[in-house]
Amino acid sequence: MEYYIGVDIGGTNLKAGIVNSYGEIIGEADIPTGAERPQEIVLQDIFKVVREAIKNSGVNQNDIKAAGLGSPGMIDSKNGIVIRNYNLGWKDFEIAKLMSKEFNIPVTLENDADAAALGEVISGSAKGADSAMIITLGTGVGSGFVINEKIFRGCEWGHMVIVKDGKKCTCGRNGCFESYCSATGLINMTKEKISEFPNGILAETAKSEGKITGRTVFDAADKGDENAKILIDEYLNYLACGLVNLINGLQPEVVSIGGGIAKQGEKLLSPLREKVKAEVFGGIKMPKIVTCTLGYKAGLIGAAMAARNL
Amino acid sequence: MEYYIGVDIGGTNLKAGIVNSYGEIIGEADIPTGAERPQEIVLQDIFKVVREAIKNSGVNQNDIKAAGLGSPGMIDSKNGIVIRNYNLGWKDFEIAKLMSKEFNIPVTLENDADAAALGEVISGSAKGADSAMIITLGTGVGSGFVINEKIFRGCEWGHMVIVKDGKKCTCGRNGCFESYCSATGLINMTKEKISEFPNGILAETAKSEGKITGRTVFDAADKGDENAKILIDEYLNYLACGLVNLINGLQPEVVSIGGGIAKQGEKLLSPLREKVKAEVFGGIKMPKIVTCTLGYKAGLIGAAMAARNL
Repeated sequence: MEYYIGVDIGGTNLKAGIVNSYGEIIGEADIPTGAERPQEIVLQDIFKVVREAIKNSGVNQNDIKAAGLGSPGMIDSKNGIVIRNYNLGWKDFEIAKLMSKEFNIPVTLENDADAAALGEVISGSAKGADSAMIITLGTGVGSGFVINEKIFRGCEWGHMVIVKDGKKCTCGRNGCFESYCSATGLINMTKEKISEFPNGILAETAKSEGKITGRTVFDAADKGDENAKILIDEYLNYLACGLVNLINGLQPEVVSIGGGIAKQGEKLLSPLREKVKAEVFGGIKMPKIVTCTLGYKAGLIGAAMAARNL
Repeated sequence: MEYYIGVDIGGTNLKAGIVNSYGEIIGEADIPTGAERPQEIVLQDIFKVVREAIKNSGVNQNDIKAAGLGSPGMIDSKNGIVIRNYNLGWKDFEIAKLMSKEFNIPVTLENDADAAALGEVISGSAKGADSAMIITLGTGVGSGFVINEKIFRGCEWGHMVIVKDGKKCTCGRNGCFESYCSATGLINMTKEKISEFPNGILAETAKSEGKITGRTVFDAADKGDENAKILIDEYLNYLACGLVNLINGLQPEVVSIGGGIAKQGEKLLSPLREKVKAEVFGGIKMPKIVTCTLGYKAGLIGAAMAARNL
């Protein structure tokens, strides 16, 4: 059996996993990132957490063929360089080369969303799919596209305008998919609805939960609130709009939805499928629409599996 | 030298070209389609026009390795079947198999826009590009995406919504890229502007030209008409919006614009590049934006070159 190292360079934690060629994690470890420290020092902790994962896996280091790193921020995958990672304060960091030297194996660097997408295709919600689009509805809208178990690198579908001259996006454009469909977008819409109906069930739910999250509107709808139901329907219209754009363009076999909002499961997916089906271009096959299943493990598995062909 | 047959199955004409492995047409022929006839009869004329092209090329038929067919409509490329071609009245036509039998060579069937995109990458405006997006601004908005000289099959980016709940599109959605950026879309906007300003230079230009085309507004702008200039600016905003979406998502090295509107050349491209540059996501490289150069030959070359790896 051959083994691969997968690393997820998060703003809070550094995680490492040892993954076999079936895409199963057989040992892992994590450590706080300590993002305030210089990049060279954080890298030493990446080495440390990798060694710990190797130890936990019981694998002989000689059987480890390659490693994959998943990092957020601006990445030059071809050259293994993190160009900018604002959360970690990294700049022009030739991390793949340094890691390769340390463990004497080939190392690939991938965007963390791309790595997670590959993980879902290898071992998770899109297992076995010829092509899959993974959309993460979190602080932003992340996107990863995988064809024939290979990452289509660096797509930023969250910054696809679906409402020209619409809501301001952090990227400088207006009306991006992300401005409407991220958890942040939904929270903003929930706030607007609450100001409109300050005495409704939605407002009460937000109050009793202590803060407005991406869940609030779903919880209020469960209590029968009509305004919440209308808002969810509006949200789903935006989400379906963006997804149909991607389905018309890329024809993925599977669309996997991840991030906080995906925790709503069938409450989200069931009406979403109906809306998508009604709009997909004639002749294009309706993809399976599911939720991601691997959580943080997707990033470890995907990063490791991206290193298979090095 | 190895040679390939490329066929373009148009609603008006059937065209065939014999293409060498450098992507050069060395003999061609065409014949009216006679679309009102049964598909089996039209196919006999495809065989005829191919034989004529072979004769014109002077190539020995034994040196022809494979053939590619470019067809509009709904295509099952994998199985070589035209599922539906409304212009020609074709239905479930196993054309690749029949053509393969006739000439005793492997045959591939591609969407005509995809074939033309590959042609532009092999021999035209996007020659040598690792990845290229070809957008055709004609009756509709056609799209073709080519990576590493391979067609990414069947993308329908013309039916990407950029204005949610916007103008009605022929596909059933509202606010598609095509509804705004096709020649048809521009003509509709020109008509609206003329009803708004029935005595302006734009209205006069339309009158003197006998009908409103995609050119009319550009001609009026040349005469100094402010309303025409405003309309062109609006049109370019929509076009830039759609293109930036695709650039953020697919990161093509080259974007080639074809179709009637592309005849405006730098008058179109120069302001378009400025608008695109202002909106592309941080860290994504600005692609070259050019016009297609091969005309109808793109479809012949691309169809033939799609057959190279059979």
